[in-house]
Amino acid sequence: MTYRLLIEYDGAPYCGWQRQKGLPSVQAALEEALAIVLRKPTPLVGAGRTDSGVHARGQVAHFRTEAPLDERRVARALNGLTPASIAVHGLSIAPDNFHARYDAISRRYHYYVSVKPSALGRGYRYDLPYAVDFDAMNEAAACFLGEHDFTSFCLHRSAAVNKICVVTCARWTQGGRPQHWTFAVVANRFLHGMVRAMVGTLIDIGRGKQPAAHLYNVLASRDRRAAGPAAPPHGLVLECIEYAAH
Amino acid sequence: MTYRLLIEYDGAPYCGWQRQKGLPSVQAALEEALAIVLRKPTPLVGAGRTDSGVHARGQVAHFRTEAPLDERRVARALNGLTPASIAVHGLSIAPDNFHARYDAISRRYHYYVSVKPSALGRGYRYDLPYAVDFDAMNEAAACFLGEHDFTSFCLHRSAAVNKICVVTCARWTQGGRPQHWTFAVVANRFLHGMVRAMVGTLIDIGRGKQPAAHLYNVLASRDRRAAGPAAPPHGLVLECIEYAAH
Repeated sequence: MTYRLLIEYDGAPYCGWQRQKGLPSVQAALEEALAIVLRKPTPLVGAGRTDSGVHARGQVAHFRTEAPLDERRVARALNGLTPASIAVHGLSIAPDNFHARYDAISRRYHYYVSVKPSALGRGYRYDLPYAVDFDAMNEAAACFLGEHDFTSFCLHRSAAVNKICVVTCARWTQGGRPQHWTFAVVANRFLHGMVRAMVGTLIDIGRGKQPAAHLYNVLASRDRRAAGPAAPPHGLVLECIEYAAH
Repeated sequence: MTYRLLIEYDGAPYCGWQRQKGLPSVQAALEEALAIVLRKPTPLVGAGRTDSGVHARGQVAHFRTEAPLDERRVARALNGLTPASIAVHGLSIAPDNFHARYDAISRRYHYYVSVKPSALGRGYRYDLPYAVDFDAMNEAAACFLGEHDFTSFCLHRSAAVNKICVVTCARWTQGGRPQHWTFAVVANRFLHGMVRAMVGTLIDIGRGKQPAAHLYNVLASRDRRAAGPAAPPHGLVLECIEYAAH
């Protein structure tokens, strides 16, 4: 049987989703709990490999078992056995050949900023140290839409060969409070460090260091050094992952 | 000159707003910063004395100085000198006799809950361990409206003699996400531990331990033991304080 998990986590205490030797990861924490509940080591495959300190509200993962499970009981046990920074929101049967990563057709990330210092929720929002022009940032962000080679927004250490992504949403909107803004970006796939490089580059444009049209040159250069610095990880949340209806 | 401060804080690291010997308080952290900026000890008077672990988004405080200040520079210096858990959102001149506590005409508190476990923002929301009926809780909450003796919702150690409060809003509404609910309560004044006792009593009703009409008996009994347990502090935020237009 194949099961699909919907997972929320606070990325602060973790080296990221993916297991890394000697470091605490979300995957390791969940696999440890899963091994206790299922009484055997069971690998978990996550849809998005979030970086160190990046949060998720809608991470999806799958695992396979021989016997069917009591979904509610297992979800409750996983919540009991994992730290409070991880919450399992659902466990459901998936088609036998379901693959959380390869079957995903799009991912949605939100990057949260504040134009004033934050005390409440400061672990989930980047307080911008400069005044920025959100209109200029939106004019530039529109350049991301469509199919592009995102080599300039990908970390050098990334193993990905194909750097082509199709972006279907890239837009800043004002949030629930006037000082809060959110950058929403949706794409079929994301490269290593891509959203944080996109946000850092847009902030350089928003504060007037570069004109909005600069983004075309950055994309065309296929060189990470042409893009801006990576925005800090704590503002970034993997919001949801979309699958084709089976 | 009298100055008015608008302050946001994360209550988790503090024993509350008010200075207590040997314990970290928001007042002490701000007064320490203020003494450095103004080069002399300057007492700060807060409008609402939030309890240990309770947050504020709109706390108001005042202090008096002999010389006029550069408001923006002082606000920036206070933000630089206080921990990240405190954010000063504004400093403005107030009328000479302005008093943050005595001049306030109403206070608004929000209590945030989730009906599912929270990983993100779990320091600012109480995850309800039971299923509750929000309609029943709203039916009961309506009993709080108007002028009542709130002795049953006040901690015994409170020094307040007058236990009469006028409540003008007491209502649960569903928040930005379906699993999130907020209890908004506005009153001319609040007694020690009052909002948390109100929420704890409503939750007892919401989970079916008591009928909604039970609230009338609790109010009439004037006995803290008649009310429910205090809800945990981390769900509570002092949202704003209203003053009459000068």
